[in-house]
Amino acid sequence: MSNPTAAMIVIGDEILSGRTQDTNSNHLAQQLTMLGIDLKEIRVVSDDERQIIHTVNALRMKYTNVFTSGGIGPTHDDITADCIAKALGVSIDVRADARAALAENYKNPEVELTDARLRMARIPDGATLIDNPISKAPGFSIENVHVMAGVPAIFRAMLAGLLPNLVSGTIIQSKTVNVKLKEGDIAKMLGVIANENPDVAIGSYPYYDDGVFGCNLVVRSADAVMLENVTALIRKAFTSD
Amino acid sequence: MSNPTAAMIVIGDEILSGRTQDTNSNHLAQQLTMLGIDLKEIRVVSDDERQIIHTVNALRMKYTNVFTSGGIGPTHDDITADCIAKALGVSIDVRADARAALAENYKNPEVELTDARLRMARIPDGATLIDNPISKAPGFSIENVHVMAGVPAIFRAMLAGLLPNLVSGTIIQSKTVNVKLKEGDIAKMLGVIANENPDVAIGSYPYYDDGVFGCNLVVRSADAVMLENVTALIRKAFTSD
Repeated sequence: MSNPTAAMIVIGDEILSGRTQDTNSNHLAQQLTMLGIDLKEIRVVSDDERQIIHTVNALRMKYTNVFTSGGIGPTHDDITADCIAKALGVSIDVRADARAALAENYKNPEVELTDARLRMARIPDGATLIDNPISKAPGFSIENVHVMAGVPAIFRAMLAGLLPNLVSGTIIQSKTVNVKLKEGDIAKMLGVIANENPDVAIGSYPYYDDGVFGCNLVVRSADAVMLENVTALIRKAFTSD
Repeated sequence: MSNPTAAMIVIGDEILSGRTQDTNSNHLAQQLTMLGIDLKEIRVVSDDERQIIHTVNALRMKYTNVFTSGGIGPTHDDITADCIAKALGVSIDVRADARAALAENYKNPEVELTDARLRMARIPDGATLIDNPISKAPGFSIENVHVMAGVPAIFRAMLAGLLPNLVSGTIIQSKTVNVKLKEGDIAKMLGVIANENPDVAIGSYPYYDDGVFGCNLVVRSADAVMLENVTALIRKAFTSD
């Protein structure tokens, strides 16, 4: 059986303007790799209702899981929850359990839970809350869409609570061989090795550092013996180890 | 007239596995912002022919410019150039000018320009070369699609040569006000300010650092006076400066 799949949607003009470097998708990618869930696609979109709705609907039909980050705070530009409700065709309103979670964050919730803050308790109908141990305002899962905050520490904390609930797959293990040669010097032989071992994926990731070219050859397989054998073959072919 | 638009396609399994943090799209975003070209979307896709072709065709129809990074080296997993040719329905072969550029990199090109390296001189019919001052193997532009290397230093060098040839737009200037309050404490007033100044974009980017919450309010406008006025309004409302 093939592994569950996933897509990530990073929502936020600040990524597209270059102001902020997205790191949430890299963290998600690492976590999913350890669970055998194959991340197939990442999309960064702006704080634009039409684009968010279109992207959520395109990806939730295609992949086992869709993760989003960003746009669930209390300010006017936080439109993700409403967009998700529209994308799934469900209503959205302040929900008692989300309000109660949020209230934990305030000494005097009757006063401090302003209308603006209560926007963070608006949850699409039928969703399950995702716990936020840091600032309490919850994320949520609805069908196969998991909606989380953009602030990296909060995204990570929410994800840590969510991941144990997802169906995992066969973990693809990998080994990396660092080769201090130009890709062009190894490409032919590497192509032969790749061709002769179709059940192992071999990626070549060149780098250029301080005037020196080299590449990391990453071998991936769910089969530990095959992984070991092909890695040994590559090490023998291209390194003096 | 509205600004030219752009999309970025990052090609590479190493990003989706979490092995590598993509930084090319952040660099591109910053460069485009300085030119008044609006980056609307970033997609990260795997080294998969169908997905690359589908993504290129979806985005080149929709945006003024499409930039790609990754997959143009000499190894078996470098399939970008061939995918671009297929997406645009043109042929692809080793081209004399690309071969000549590549040859500059070698003392003895007759021997060193192996078949594997010559793959890097395969250019889709009708494309213009993008100079690679670092490792010589060129990128290329075909119609509105600009194909560059994934190694960050080379991506940046190629982009620096390419950008002056593109049509630029009105530069959106921005000012950032750091506010040491929780978003919930400013959301209502900020919403009023945003509502009263529809020609200025106001984004709120919360952060959580060492147990302290705060946010950066970013005001964006092509109009310097309006930008200054709204920034002053925000500073007065939420800071003691």
